[in-house]
Amino acid sequence: MTLVKEDIAAYFRDLQTLICSGIEQADEQGSFREDSWDRPEGGGGHSRVIVNGKILEKAGVNFSAVHGPLHPKIVSSMDIQDEVDFFASGVSIVMHPKNPWVPIIHMNVRYFELSNGQHWFGGGIDLTPHIIIPEQAKWFHQQIKNVCDQSNSAYYPKFKAWADDYFYSPHREETRGIGGIFFDYLKSNSVEEKNQHFDFVKQVGESFVPIYAHLMHENANKEFAQAEKDFQLLRRGRYVEFNLVHDRGTKFGLETNGRTESILMSMPPMASWEYMYDVNTYPEGAKTIELLKKGIDWA
Amino acid sequence: MTLVKEDIAAYFRDLQTLICSGIEQADEQGSFREDSWDRPEGGGGHSRVIVNGKILEKAGVNFSAVHGPLHPKIVSSMDIQDEVDFFASGVSIVMHPKNPWVPIIHMNVRYFELSNGQHWFGGGIDLTPHIIIPEQAKWFHQQIKNVCDQSNSAYYPKFKAWADDYFYSPHREETRGIGGIFFDYLKSNSVEEKNQHFDFVKQVGESFVPIYAHLMHENANKEFAQAEKDFQLLRRGRYVEFNLVHDRGTKFGLETNGRTESILMSMPPMASWEYMYDVNTYPEGAKTIELLKKGIDWA
Repeated sequence: MTLVKEDIAAYFRDLQTLICSGIEQADEQGSFREDSWDRPEGGGGHSRVIVNGKILEKAGVNFSAVHGPLHPKIVSSMDIQDEVDFFASGVSIVMHPKNPWVPIIHMNVRYFELSNGQHWFGGGIDLTPHIIIPEQAKWFHQQIKNVCDQSNSAYYPKFKAWADDYFYSPHREETRGIGGIFFDYLKSNSVEEKNQHFDFVKQVGESFVPIYAHLMHENANKEFAQAEKDFQLLRRGRYVEFNLVHDRGTKFGLETNGRTESILMSMPPMASWEYMYDVNTYPEGAKTIELLKKGIDWA
Repeated sequence: MTLVKEDIAAYFRDLQTLICSGIEQADEQGSFREDSWDRPEGGGGHSRVIVNGKILEKAGVNFSAVHGPLHPKIVSSMDIQDEVDFFASGVSIVMHPKNPWVPIIHMNVRYFELSNGQHWFGGGIDLTPHIIIPEQAKWFHQQIKNVCDQSNSAYYPKFKAWADDYFYSPHREETRGIGGIFFDYLKSNSVEEKNQHFDFVKQVGESFVPIYAHLMHENANKEFAQAEKDFQLLRRGRYVEFNLVHDRGTKFGLETNGRTESILMSMPPMASWEYMYDVNTYPEGAKTIELLKKGIDWA
């Protein structure tokens, strides 16, 4: 059966609910507040945010399904000649935990369709530990690799390298975190192939709660001192820099008049900057910074 | 006598020293640490930063004088046909005070010269109070207007409007602060005119210490509660957003491989983000946000 955009958007909306419910359970205290918004040019979204949960200091799960004339900024970047309308739907997640030992996580699944018939899936999931615990980095990548391998054994190596490139901050010469997978323009030539891609995207989306709930539980009760908290604030500052300076989605959203509060839900509740930070201040942090590079074979 | 680029750069380096010495006096405790750096493609700079002064939590005064082949990003934006070398020198300042009643201040003076003979001055000074005190906003603009009027009575209205436009954050639909002046491409057709422009730039630069020292002393001993501190952190978050998303100088510096630590010296020591911030949380803050718009005739 043909897979139509309405079905995909309906699935994403359900995925949002599934994830929010799983994360509320894992947090044991926070509950998502929903704000719904309309896009003047067509469509809208539902943003769900936890503020000050037990484990999560700030956690956002956005759903949106928007449509309308394609923005000139995309038209020019995509080599499209005609005036076309677009439809885009997806779920975007960023979670900032309180305890520095719990990593920041980001996930996105999306579907894009043009009125000229082109359509594709994109997305990814990646982890930004404030302090890298190598065994957990390995475990995370293994989980993601398993998800990929169920669909296509070529996916993980390709999408892992793509995440390494995408989440790289040239001005800091470091990756945002330990990466994960990133994919885009997953185009299909048949109904069967489109369904396969959709299944992969579903598996990515549905892997979120088991993976992050595990990392929350593993780390949320660990003790930490001011040194860990200070380093967390500093790493959050780098997260802010990456998102505001380099992240394509954030830049595009802000430039095309997206809903600012939903786009910037990714900002941490609090972040710090220190001029000429000395890595010797906090040895665990120095080890982390050593691991913020492309091409590490974590899995 | 012809004014050559070496003289201008030498003046800027002296201005940095003058300003640092004046600010150290006003702070009564902080002292600037200097880091010197070389630019691989030509030239370099001296960054001076106070961390944890008495009044100033973080204050940076950058001097640089750089040269080399013009970066492709500028060439394409400037409609230049030939391959040309550039020379640029200037002083850039951002100061973040501890007390929320003391405003954030920014100043820049710069000179740009191309090997094809074109040359111009640019710069400006603008104020970002965390909480706007209308009498002080008025006083600040009057000082700046006086500086401008000494050179040319057309400057203040023109450069004030330019600052309103430049320091506007479209995604927040607000100005960064109460503005000030911003000017660029101050080109001259004669030695006399070039000297006049240089005199104006000097007067802007030399107005910095008297203006900011006054605002430091007026406000640094005011009492504040957690509500003011929270609002300060929130406004600093907006400052980060403006600088990383919109500020031309910051973006250009990061994209062209500038010295990251000097460019991002403008980041506050600590900043916060709150999803769907409710202006009713802090009534003084709501009044401030009302005043973050273009076109207010403060002077």
